[in-house]
Amino acid sequence: MMSQAPRIPRSRDNDYSEEIAAERRDFVTRQTGQALPHIGHYNQPVEQLSGNIENFFGVAQMPLGLAGPMRVNGEHADGDFYVPMATTEGTLVASYSRGMKLLNACGGVTTTVVEKYMQRSPVFSFADSRQSREFGAWVIARFEAIKKAAEATTSIGKLSHIEQYQIARLRYLRFNYTTGDAAGQNMVGKATLAACEWIQDNYPAPYSWTLSGNIDTDKKHSQMNLMHSRGTRVVAEATIPNATLQQMMGVSTRTLYRQRQISNVGAMLSHAANNGAHAANGIAAVFIATGQDEANVAESHAGLVYTELMDNDDYYWSITLPSLIVATYGGGTGLGTQREALEMLGCYGQGKAVKLAEIIAATVLAGDISLSSAILAGDWVSSHDRLGRNRP
Amino acid sequence: MMSQAPRIPRSRDNDYSEEIAAERRDFVTRQTGQALPHIGHYNQPVEQLSGNIENFFGVAQMPLGLAGPMRVNGEHADGDFYVPMATTEGTLVASYSRGMKLLNACGGVTTTVVEKYMQRSPVFSFADSRQSREFGAWVIARFEAIKKAAEATTSIGKLSHIEQYQIARLRYLRFNYTTGDAAGQNMVGKATLAACEWIQDNYPAPYSWTLSGNIDTDKKHSQMNLMHSRGTRVVAEATIPNATLQQMMGVSTRTLYRQRQISNVGAMLSHAANNGAHAANGIAAVFIATGQDEANVAESHAGLVYTELMDNDDYYWSITLPSLIVATYGGGTGLGTQREALEMLGCYGQGKAVKLAEIIAATVLAGDISLSSAILAGDWVSSHDRLGRNRP
Amino acid sequence: MMSQAPRIPRSRDNDYSEEIAAERRDFVTRQTGQALPHIGHYNQPVEQLSGNIENFFGVAQMPLGLAGPMRVNGEHADGDFYVPMATTEGTLVASYSRGMKLLNACGGVTTTVVEKYMQRSPVFSFADSRQSREFGAWVIARFEAIKKAAEATTSIGKLSHIEQYQIARLRYLRFNYTTGDAAGQNMVGKATLAACEWIQDNYPAPYSWTLSGNIDTDKKHSQMNLMHSRGTRVVAEATIPNATLQQMMGVSTRTLYRQRQISNVGAMLSHAANNGAHAANGIAAVFIATGQDEANVAESHAGLVYTELMDNDDYYWSITLPSLIVATYGGGTGLGTQREALEMLGCYGQGKAVKLAEIIAATVLAGDISLSSAILAGDWVSSHDRLGRNRP
Amino acid sequence: MMSQAPRIPRSRDNDYSEEIAAERRDFVTRQTGQALPHIGHYNQPVEQLSGNIENFFGVAQMPLGLAGPMRVNGEHADGDFYVPMATTEGTLVASYSRGMKLLNACGGVTTTVVEKYMQRSPVFSFADSRQSREFGAWVIARFEAIKKAAEATTSIGKLSHIEQYQIARLRYLRFNYTTGDAAGQNMVGKATLAACEWIQDNYPAPYSWTLSGNIDTDKKHSQMNLMHSRGTRVVAEATIPNATLQQMMGVSTRTLYRQRQISNVGAMLSHAANNGAHAANGIAAVFIATGQDEANVAESHAGLVYTELMDNDDYYWSITLPSLIVATYGGGTGLGTQREALEMLGCYGQGKAVKLAEIIAATVLAGDISLSSAILAGDWVSSHDRLGRNRP
Repeated sequence: MMSQAPRIPRSRDNDYSEEIAAERRDFVTRQTGQALPHIGHYNQPVEQLSGNIENFFGVAQMPLGLAGPMRVNGEHADGDFYVPMATTEGTLVASYSRGMKLLNACGGVTTTVVEKYMQRSPVFSFADSRQSREFGAWVIARFEAIKKAAEATTSIGKLSHIEQYQIARLRYLRFNYTTGDAAGQNMVGKATLAACEWIQDNYPAPYSWTLSGNIDTDKKHSQMNLMHSRGTRVVAEATIPNATLQQMMGVSTRTLYRQRQISNVGAMLSHAANNGAHAANGIAAVFIATGQDEANVAESHAGLVYTELMDNDDYYWSITLPSLIVATYGGGTGLGTQREALEMLGCYGQGKAVKLAEIIAATVLAGDISLSSAILAGDWVSSHDRLGRNRP
Repeated sequence: MMSQAPRIPRSRDNDYSEEIAAERRDFVTRQTGQALPHIGHYNQPVEQLSGNIENFFGVAQMPLGLAGPMRVNGEHADGDFYVPMATTEGTLVASYSRGMKLLNACGGVTTTVVEKYMQRSPVFSFADSRQSREFGAWVIARFEAIKKAAEATTSIGKLSHIEQYQIARLRYLRFNYTTGDAAGQNMVGKATLAACEWIQDNYPAPYSWTLSGNIDTDKKHSQMNLMHSRGTRVVAEATIPNATLQQMMGVSTRTLYRQRQISNVGAMLSHAANNGAHAANGIAAVFIATGQDEANVAESHAGLVYTELMDNDDYYWSITLPSLIVATYGGGTGLGTQREALEMLGCYGQGKAVKLAEIIAATVLAGDISLSSAILAGDWVSSHDRLGRNRP
Repeated sequence: MMSQAPRIPRSRDNDYSEEIAAERRDFVTRQTGQALPHIGHYNQPVEQLSGNIENFFGVAQMPLGLAGPMRVNGEHADGDFYVPMATTEGTLVASYSRGMKLLNACGGVTTTVVEKYMQRSPVFSFADSRQSREFGAWVIARFEAIKKAAEATTSIGKLSHIEQYQIARLRYLRFNYTTGDAAGQNMVGKATLAACEWIQDNYPAPYSWTLSGNIDTDKKHSQMNLMHSRGTRVVAEATIPNATLQQMMGVSTRTLYRQRQISNVGAMLSHAANNGAHAANGIAAVFIATGQDEANVAESHAGLVYTELMDNDDYYWSITLPSLIVATYGGGTGLGTQREALEMLGCYGQGKAVKLAEIIAATVLAGDISLSSAILAGDWVSSHDRLGRNRP
Repeated sequence: MMSQAPRIPRSRDNDYSEEIAAERRDFVTRQTGQALPHIGHYNQPVEQLSGNIENFFGVAQMPLGLAGPMRVNGEHADGDFYVPMATTEGTLVASYSRGMKLLNACGGVTTTVVEKYMQRSPVFSFADSRQSREFGAWVIARFEAIKKAAEATTSIGKLSHIEQYQIARLRYLRFNYTTGDAAGQNMVGKATLAACEWIQDNYPAPYSWTLSGNIDTDKKHSQMNLMHSRGTRVVAEATIPNATLQQMMGVSTRTLYRQRQISNVGAMLSHAANNGAHAANGIAAVFIATGQDEANVAESHAGLVYTELMDNDDYYWSITLPSLIVATYGGGTGLGTQREALEMLGCYGQGKAVKLAEIIAATVLAGDISLSSAILAGDWVSSHDRLGRNRP
């Protein structure tokens, strides 16, 4: 039984116009009784949205708060930054700013991009496990030809290496590409499709295959991402003198370090994607502000906090984000507000993705330090009471 | 060394006014050279934002696409819905709509909220493991008193039960509350703080404690959430006739079922948070549209797909979202565009959170069916080429 | 095509006699050319083996080494113990003895049994998820009747509680029993079968069910076991003065603590079942010596190490074994050598299972301290060279 | 406070003699009151045990049952095998034999060794993350020199490749070796130590390092092992006609396939190390019989079951054991009973480790089929009642 509800208005001539957007808002109002005066209020040019969305009918106005300044000592991001954060969670911007202030007092955050890859993972199924194993060896021997076929589809993407995993007669390949300043999920999909077609034309034995065997692992956190990176693997680290922490946060580095032991056990006990405090908050806020794919919070929020208490009670604090997926080109990065947010960070366009990754990683470190200190200093709940009144 | 960069303008009198927001935009322009004509364009009343954000300086205009109609046969959501999705990823709205159309043809999606809790997890540390064990027994015996202390802080939240986990001399408690239509993270924080203070006043032996032992697991995916729910545990399920699938998607149910085996192995091999296709996409898009906490995509994207091929080749397809965190009250739900989006779903305010959870779960199922079919039918890459031109 | 190889000799009259065992050895020799003079050498009475093994044809002579003395300050194990360890891995007994000596110098190991349960986990499948949810509520309401049905099958086992987990229309129940001094896998299987049959007789709606839904998780490590215990959840803990460690092991407590941070990160990165050193070694060795089910090393080797460095550089070191499965009655515990090994620990028979669990946990702690220190002191490889010459 | 309990007797002249073993038994008897007539009964030559155990004082007599015949169609194991299984768990040998009989009727088990490596994983710590990243590149560039240094310590071990994982300023290397017919843990420890010393002599910048960073992951199950193999990655697979299964096991392939879906969900829900039935049982039993390191059951019991139901209702069933650690040389393989057990499989000595891995994998498949069928056919509990009378 097909739904009898009316179909959403579409325009055959031009589905990206003010007219059809307004028509859809009217449609919603007729169907649901709800007028959309806010959703219909925007200055994002509609014609620019082709390629970003279908059935456009308005915008969500996500409030932006300004955090910072934050001193970043990166290889790509080097200087003081004001970070635009989109959120509706009271205290979040204030808390991140507080962490940034502490880190500034410690000389800033050092950031390092360790590696950067985007994946697509086809799977090949054979008559038996031996044929599957043979195929694996064949792929290794033909890497250059496969690379050529894949790269013929893109001027930017480069095939770096192919991981292989065999389970029974299935051979999962995980293609790793560099994708310049794009996140690159589609780029690598197209390139891997071409690679698979080349394989199909050249492999002598029979098999079946699919473009995704579910180990990409696209839009999903996974242990594989934590190990092997998806997007940018980036580290933010800083050394915090005990006196500075005591003065600004009201806790000692020893207290933080002891709590780190407890948090690590908690993370192992619950098997959490991140043994830190709340990386997802900072990541989601900057992602929305800067036109990133917000669903990638799933992958990107994974993290590993590693700390050391020095003999002088200085505290080395780091967080490694193994699968932070960022783009400064393509996707939502070119839209009106999103591009402005990127430009204010000096992060729009070519050659900027690693810079943005460094800024986000530094932001995450600031947020974790602030929240962790607040929990221990006992002002966590009270600050939410004061600043987050809309948050029941 | 403190950063020498100028501080962000704040107003002592009223930090939620058009004036201070404009002053901050000017500040950004002076500091970075970037004008903010789009970010400064909104009709969200600024004064309403107190409690949602600090240092407000404008908005991100997130494009909204309209998906549907989608027939939902829920206990709370019962009827046809048009779903607002905020995204910049081309093909996403089209793909979800396609899945909804198929599911409509199958009679719609059945949705079931299994349970709904929000957690806060303090940790208690004792001199040794035996004292820690004794404490656990004491807490069980005082549940009613603890519940009373916790609930004194909230008119909505109710303490349902307390899980206990002991590692060495640490006792991790995981307080589970019902929180009405709020997501409730702050509500349960405040209530658990009160509970801990009651414990402190009454427990005879010495110990130290912290309000979070990292097993909440707030803003983080975890296996614990997958088992024990965080937010709403909701199922979307449907039975798809082979003929319908063949006609509308170009694949057979047998093909889908065989791929399900491969996807399960892929998910176990990579240890992914979800063995389905791309729940995070639908969740993030509806979250942003409806004023949910977007960082909760971290927890909410977890899922377990379970399917069965019937003897007549009908295909039972379900996805269980064990930690979908939704609110229809508080947080960002009352803001201009966000409230409109909720209202068009009939989901604003009291008694609506479970309805929204059902709609999101149904949406996720539609998206998974569409993408999974596209991958197998071979039109995944080509559809991205056509609709997602801005996506490199 | 059935194998044409000859069938193994069996006796209809008495399959547990010296004659049939010898006949099987002869059979092996005829079929493979290999005489079995060592396998045939034993004084274990064959007739006693009925119920422990089928097709008996001899024994494996597992060498036993004697470790200790080890001071245990347990609630059940209180005193000095000499621990029989079955192994063929050179240096293992020496290394464990070294750790015991250190711990003796620190006053011994404190051990605590936190809880003890054995599980069986049937799964129930319904027409849809709502029916599955209703069933869950029905089970909670009938707990006493279900308990009565289960306990009617056993004089020892008591049903403690039933965990419930719903995925789609499947309801997984996890029955938790106390099982006295038996490991209890079969006891709980029989009891849960009776419980399921009672449910079948009484539940009004249709469903299908199976006695195991794979979350027991029998003979498998799982995160669920780590959280919810399987067998004994037992802690071994000790506080180690820095001077003692330095003198006996050649490393400082600070060095160990710093390495603990690195080991924790390694365990999270690799997602290991245990963040400690080598619990499996000690567990396997005592298991084989004392007639435990050696396959339970799978579950039992899971562990969580938690340590703290005190301000005076004393080092609190603990390991929690969440699923240590032990028996002092039934299974292999009554056989010749196995019973002797249990008796020398004062652990044979009724009321002794928790004592044995404490001794094993203490042993594990000793082994972890010894190996961890050796790695850091740099004499790990050299000691294997000296003592483990048969180990390439 | 040092324990006052007497020290275990040792001999300075020769600690591997009948005399000192007997003296230790007397010592145990004096200390505990327990005579050891069974433990003292063995014909394993004591002098041979140097390198395998310290403080030898007797043996555990582990009963051996004979399972089979089992037809294996391996690349290394090709023919019919009688498998020695050491166990005290009633029904185990009978159940495995039943599975073997079924598989024989299906033409036997096909086995494939996919790859075989042994690891040691040192960790290097630098002043910051950039230095750590530089070190990684340096290691890649010096692979041949590092390989040469490592291989200088062993005539058998060959360094295959080095995985690298960076978390913060830590660089974890995971050295992968082929180790011939030895399990090789000590061989690779010694080789990696030499490699690390070569690095120490040649790397220009300062750092600290440790021989194990806990990602080996020695004697521990880990997701990393599941992905990247530890020991042998071996597949056992077979295709089972429905009629054969029905006749011999009393269940249909459809029933098994449906239960597979439920078992997969159960494994994902509990996050189990193996989604199959009870691999640990077969592995532990053959390990003890054949002189393997029984603690390696921890790593070796991991597995991934993958099945497909063919259109004709034939059932393809496979299990992949990703980290099965076996040796046919060194360790306990040369001892009296252990060597006999290896010889009866044709698996003692050079060139036989992969053959043994195939036999064990085939055995595991047989056991999983038997138990899974029994659970579904409803004769699981009843068979334990009949055969496992000693198992409460």
